[in-house]
Amino acid sequence: MDQLFKGLDDIYNEIVDIRRHLHQHPELSFEEVNTANYIAAYHEKLGHKVRTNVGGNGVLAYLEGDKPGPTVAIRADFDALPIHEETDVPFKSVNTGVMHACGHDGHTATLLGLAKVLNSMKSEIEGTVLFLHQHAEELPPGGAISMIKDGCLDGVDVIFGTHLQAQMPLGEIGYRSGPLQAAPDRFDITIRGKGGHGAAPHETKDSIVIGGQLIGNLQQIVSRKVDPLESAVVSVCSFEAKNPYNVIADTATLTGTVRTFKEEIRTSIEKEIERIVQGTCLVSDASYEYTYTRGYPTTVNHKEETEFVAKLAQSVPGVEAVKETPPIMGGEDFSYYLQKVKGTFFFTGAKSPDWNEAYPHHHPKFDLDERALLIAAKTLGLATLHYMKNSSKTLSSQQV
Amino acid sequence: MDQLFKGLDDIYNEIVDIRRHLHQHPELSFEEVNTANYIAAYHEKLGHKVRTNVGGNGVLAYLEGDKPGPTVAIRADFDALPIHEETDVPFKSVNTGVMHACGHDGHTATLLGLAKVLNSMKSEIEGTVLFLHQHAEELPPGGAISMIKDGCLDGVDVIFGTHLQAQMPLGEIGYRSGPLQAAPDRFDITIRGKGGHGAAPHETKDSIVIGGQLIGNLQQIVSRKVDPLESAVVSVCSFEAKNPYNVIADTATLTGTVRTFKEEIRTSIEKEIERIVQGTCLVSDASYEYTYTRGYPTTVNHKEETEFVAKLAQSVPGVEAVKETPPIMGGEDFSYYLQKVKGTFFFTGAKSPDWNEAYPHHHPKFDLDERALLIAAKTLGLATLHYMKNSSKTLSSQQV
Amino acid sequence: MDQLFKGLDDIYNEIVDIRRHLHQHPELSFEEVNTANYIAAYHEKLGHKVRTNVGGNGVLAYLEGDKPGPTVAIRADFDALPIHEETDVPFKSVNTGVMHACGHDGHTATLLGLAKVLNSMKSEIEGTVLFLHQHAEELPPGGAISMIKDGCLDGVDVIFGTHLQAQMPLGEIGYRSGPLQAAPDRFDITIRGKGGHGAAPHETKDSIVIGGQLIGNLQQIVSRKVDPLESAVVSVCSFEAKNPYNVIADTATLTGTVRTFKEEIRTSIEKEIERIVQGTCLVSDASYEYTYTRGYPTTVNHKEETEFVAKLAQSVPGVEAVKETPPIMGGEDFSYYLQKVKGTFFFTGAKSPDWNEAYPHHHPKFDLDERALLIAAKTLGLATLHYMKNSSKTLSSQQV
Amino acid sequence: MDQLFKGLDDIYNEIVDIRRHLHQHPELSFEEVNTANYIAAYHEKLGHKVRTNVGGNGVLAYLEGDKPGPTVAIRADFDALPIHEETDVPFKSVNTGVMHACGHDGHTATLLGLAKVLNSMKSEIEGTVLFLHQHAEELPPGGAISMIKDGCLDGVDVIFGTHLQAQMPLGEIGYRSGPLQAAPDRFDITIRGKGGHGAAPHETKDSIVIGGQLIGNLQQIVSRKVDPLESAVVSVCSFEAKNPYNVIADTATLTGTVRTFKEEIRTSIEKEIERIVQGTCLVSDASYEYTYTRGYPTTVNHKEETEFVAKLAQSVPGVEAVKETPPIMGGEDFSYYLQKVKGTFFFTGAKSPDWNEAYPHHHPKFDLDERALLIAAKTLGLATLHYMKNSSKTLSSQQV
Repeated sequence: MDQLFKGLDDIYNEIVDIRRHLHQHPELSFEEVNTANYIAAYHEKLGHKVRTNVGGNGVLAYLEGDKPGPTVAIRADFDALPIHEETDVPFKSVNTGVMHACGHDGHTATLLGLAKVLNSMKSEIEGTVLFLHQHAEELPPGGAISMIKDGCLDGVDVIFGTHLQAQMPLGEIGYRSGPLQAAPDRFDITIRGKGGHGAAPHETKDSIVIGGQLIGNLQQIVSRKVDPLESAVVSVCSFEAKNPYNVIADTATLTGTVRTFKEEIRTSIEKEIERIVQGTCLVSDASYEYTYTRGYPTTVNHKEETEFVAKLAQSVPGVEAVKETPPIMGGEDFSYYLQKVKGTFFFTGAKSPDWNEAYPHHHPKFDLDERALLIAAKTLGLATLHYMKNSSKTLSSQQV
Repeated sequence: MDQLFKGLDDIYNEIVDIRRHLHQHPELSFEEVNTANYIAAYHEKLGHKVRTNVGGNGVLAYLEGDKPGPTVAIRADFDALPIHEETDVPFKSVNTGVMHACGHDGHTATLLGLAKVLNSMKSEIEGTVLFLHQHAEELPPGGAISMIKDGCLDGVDVIFGTHLQAQMPLGEIGYRSGPLQAAPDRFDITIRGKGGHGAAPHETKDSIVIGGQLIGNLQQIVSRKVDPLESAVVSVCSFEAKNPYNVIADTATLTGTVRTFKEEIRTSIEKEIERIVQGTCLVSDASYEYTYTRGYPTTVNHKEETEFVAKLAQSVPGVEAVKETPPIMGGEDFSYYLQKVKGTFFFTGAKSPDWNEAYPHHHPKFDLDERALLIAAKTLGLATLHYMKNSSKTLSSQQV
Repeated sequence: MDQLFKGLDDIYNEIVDIRRHLHQHPELSFEEVNTANYIAAYHEKLGHKVRTNVGGNGVLAYLEGDKPGPTVAIRADFDALPIHEETDVPFKSVNTGVMHACGHDGHTATLLGLAKVLNSMKSEIEGTVLFLHQHAEELPPGGAISMIKDGCLDGVDVIFGTHLQAQMPLGEIGYRSGPLQAAPDRFDITIRGKGGHGAAPHETKDSIVIGGQLIGNLQQIVSRKVDPLESAVVSVCSFEAKNPYNVIADTATLTGTVRTFKEEIRTSIEKEIERIVQGTCLVSDASYEYTYTRGYPTTVNHKEETEFVAKLAQSVPGVEAVKETPPIMGGEDFSYYLQKVKGTFFFTGAKSPDWNEAYPHHHPKFDLDERALLIAAKTLGLATLHYMKNSSKTLSSQQV
Repeated sequence: MDQLFKGLDDIYNEIVDIRRHLHQHPELSFEEVNTANYIAAYHEKLGHKVRTNVGGNGVLAYLEGDKPGPTVAIRADFDALPIHEETDVPFKSVNTGVMHACGHDGHTATLLGLAKVLNSMKSEIEGTVLFLHQHAEELPPGGAISMIKDGCLDGVDVIFGTHLQAQMPLGEIGYRSGPLQAAPDRFDITIRGKGGHGAAPHETKDSIVIGGQLIGNLQQIVSRKVDPLESAVVSVCSFEAKNPYNVIADTATLTGTVRTFKEEIRTSIEKEIERIVQGTCLVSDASYEYTYTRGYPTTVNHKEETEFVAKLAQSVPGVEAVKETPPIMGGEDFSYYLQKVKGTFFFTGAKSPDWNEAYPHHHPKFDLDERALLIAAKTLGLATLHYMKNSSKTLSSQQV
């Protein structure tokens, strides 16, 4: 594996440049046309067979090894978020209000760098490597489901993927068999009161007052209605009732997310929210609209593949610790791939040892230690090559 | 006065046309350039001496009568509101998001129609009529204060004005000596929490939750802190924390209005809000910014001039009732004129007998019965001519 | 009137002693047996005709003057409150949890002292003085209504009464024609959730959480639902959900008061509360019970009698100011008397000039300046004697 | 073990009678004098060596077997709760407001029945059985800690205990190595506002309104401040502000419980509550008192002893399932014993197959299927005898 590791070390600067380029030119989910073109061009230059517009803006690139063997998919997502970047980096987003605040720029740079190095090792590759570049991970219904529908998993034997984690120390790899990430749902509530002059509240039904009560009432789902031994999140993330300073709001809209691991809790929260909205609106004799949109399913890693990667990761240069990670409440549409083929999704630590505290993902000051990209590329590359090598044996008995 | 009444009846259709033209082309406060030009052109065509750009977009037009006498100012405001019109009228606003939802289109049409008729009666006019067209009544600091600074009241002996009231029946005139309209203040609050991923609330300080608590807590000012025998309003009219569905809000902004008649209550509410904001932010360890902007002073009518107009109004055709009106919580920068010269501000009913219920002012479906414009014009015209006629006597002993 | 004033001055110490005795031995509404006996004994000793157990614990004492004339009733109430006294006075309540925190001890002492002095002036009295000692003013349905039913107003021509006011300066008399005191209603709400172990909230419906939301939601009646130009109070005064520290509350009970001057607002608040309770309970799928009990009607003073007393008060020694008082939100069952016979109820200032601030009525540290009792006695006595003297003339033309 | 099982079957009716007697005569924590006497008398009659008043009302009874061996402690608690019983059972509590609503009556009856049968098997008992009857489990600081201080564990080799679970089906035994029950803490908050007349809220600081806001604000600890992957409960269980219907509350007291498994979360919640109380009081300019009282530590079962009992339980007649139970949020001062000696605490299902739903523990209608007592006695007896039999070997290698 020295060739893999050395190859990646040699192009580390290029990987960083790609990441910074992508960071500077982020595109929103489902609108990632330039990013997709960039990715496709990169693979075409390497001579890979490329399919574009897969289930939307998805890009598939195939590297066929000189020897026969299985097809291993490695996935990276490439969309950005509607967040206004507040960092001071020189490669700060030039697209106002759009930011790579979740590390997908890093995922893509990792995959492109790995593609270049694996391409140079073609003669030793026993099977096909599918570089699965997925659009729209951040916004349900997400890109995975339509890419699968469009055939991205056809012929695929196994799939690997990783997420760079800004709050996990650089040098750490986190794995977990079974449920890794929660089901991330979305709710939208519109309160319909009655607007009017700010000086005559008694002639109105004040949607902002109703909305304020609703935010408070929704807290009781997690604090009172969910078994404290179970996990659930209900967050109101957006509240809009923009009006002149003296016009009482006719309408207020609330949007947010629910995270759960268990179906019965998910279903019960969907109903609880509605009853709480209904009661809160009744207090002020207002009406409402409520929609609950199920997001990705829970991400469930396959046991054998997870343990396989966890074991391999220990031999990756730069990796100082491989730990079982607790599940996390954030969702991932990698879950759809794992419903179709075997595989695992793991975490690569990207918190710089120089930072006391890292900004959370989706924060306007989110940042990564770019050395994590190298570790991610090495781990994914190692898993790919070893999987191929061991494809005739059962994974559990393989020699690392 | 028959000539006045007949003259106005004859041009009623023109008055309505003017109002509809203005309604269709509303302009926001301090941006009323086209409206000001329209007004100026109308007066110039009549041959009135016109001053434009008075204290901003204000327009003054002077009609000098053939006989000597006092200067009587009649005021109409001409700005519109940032409201998205939802009526079905054929002359619906063509400026998206801007609407004459308070009747200022009607005020201006009233004044222009009256100008035309009084102009035709020039030979009988004993003094000068100043048509005071004021911009920016809806948005503090308002147009009145800068127009006064720019000399609009120079030489003025008395000032009259009216507001069309959509919820007062057509045919009714409302008057009141002393405090008529409240002091309308504005507050702006920014809550600064800490944003983050919607699935990880424990790493954030959720500004929307804080804002929800704040809205609720602010209700206690009126319900618990103001003497129930006094009047006060505290309305949060705007709440903004727009975010993706899965990003917890870093910041929330609240804007609203306070209405009071008494200085000590005004001062105490200004302080109460701050303490409530401070305590509410402390609950979540967040920080805040708070500004309180004093709006217009209380509108205080002069006793003699108020009774003078009230008495005269009884003889206006179409007026079926002249009533003492209770004070109202809405503010008016007519208050500034009344601090400088004598005068009165009264209400002209504009609720159609065909309506069961009228939409309140500032509502997206606000409407007027246009016959009210005729009544307003006749009442203001009558007051002007009688004031001139009686200028040598004391008002109280005059013959109507 | 010198005899009246001098007579009262002479027994001032006795009046104070009576007040202190009563203060030390307060009795709750409808349980004032000892107080009633004390009052009856005092009058019997003076030789007055006494009726006890009038409509409950009420006491009537008649002083027949030597000359014929009208019957003038003077009323004092004598019940105390379920408040735990926190003053340091040597005559502090010996009945734990019961306190004269509203001044009824002073009212009764005033009336008894006045009885003694008027008794000594019997030869000059032209008519009958009825000392109307009413029980149970603090607790609806109150004593007045049952005393009236039991004949206490039979033959009465006019009624006078006063309330000592701890927050009105000593030396001030406050009068008002028309509505003086609000209609004080009561509401009782029981929230029925589902109790359980404090560690398992998800198996319960937490009545305390529901109650907390309800308290907050009820604030919006006054802040959002009542015309700011009108007066209304909604106070939750009692909240009970007493439980062990680890048992979630099955039930919470809220009790409070509503104060209004206008029937339509009263009716609308009664309905608003119910809708708010209903909606708030729906939020947590709980049930409730709600009762709204109308208390005393608005206290409406008669114009002629009010002006009569206001004029007379100016000549009372110790009175420095006679002012029109604003209406107050507290209720009074004196209202029932005024529905049957003419009369007036006025306020006697009792705030000591030595105090910076006075504790409000119903406060555990409530106190009075006892010199107010003398002023009250003189004013009531003067009104009684003058009313008799002028009974043949119309009140308005009388000579003071 | 047939003798044990048969012996218990034979006295099942007596066990039930004992349980019902105790149920009918419940006593509050630290006040269980009669119950302690009853227990002591029962053991004395059996000829056991008895120590009373151990660390309070605790009772220790020793059965010395005819053969030498280890000392095995079996513990039952015997205090009741301040709950008003609402069941219809003929043996309903005769002590108003006190109820065995947690099954401690059953625990004690189980232990006494077991004592009688083991006593009859004396000749076969290889060691000493300590019947550890503990008072005051429900109320921190609890009875365990003082009984330990008073020597109750002296010479003890192992301790076993069980809790009857009304919501676990009859026939089920639940075990868990490691953390089984949470640390149950207590908080007490007093809000000091300013009381006054219900009609004059503006002269007060309304403690009930503040308390209502506080209840709502405290919900955000679990919903926003605790990692959703961790467990925590914050319940306000008692709220007291009892007042007349027209007196605004000076003071409100809130009492509740916090449950956690991890020390850092426990510490952080203790601080969060204080900041929330501080901020909420600041909103209304009120003051407060706050105390946080740490309850029992987390109950941590020993692995070897837990597995030993779990294995044995499978052979107990009536046991249909032995399952690993999730941890529970309720606390137990059995935790103190497990800090000193080895042992395990397990759950015995007591939900009747005839019930659709069982009332939770601490509910006024709480009930047990009494057949669970027999299963509990058999399991504890079996564990005791086997432990003795295997005391020379390591537990893990023993033969069941």
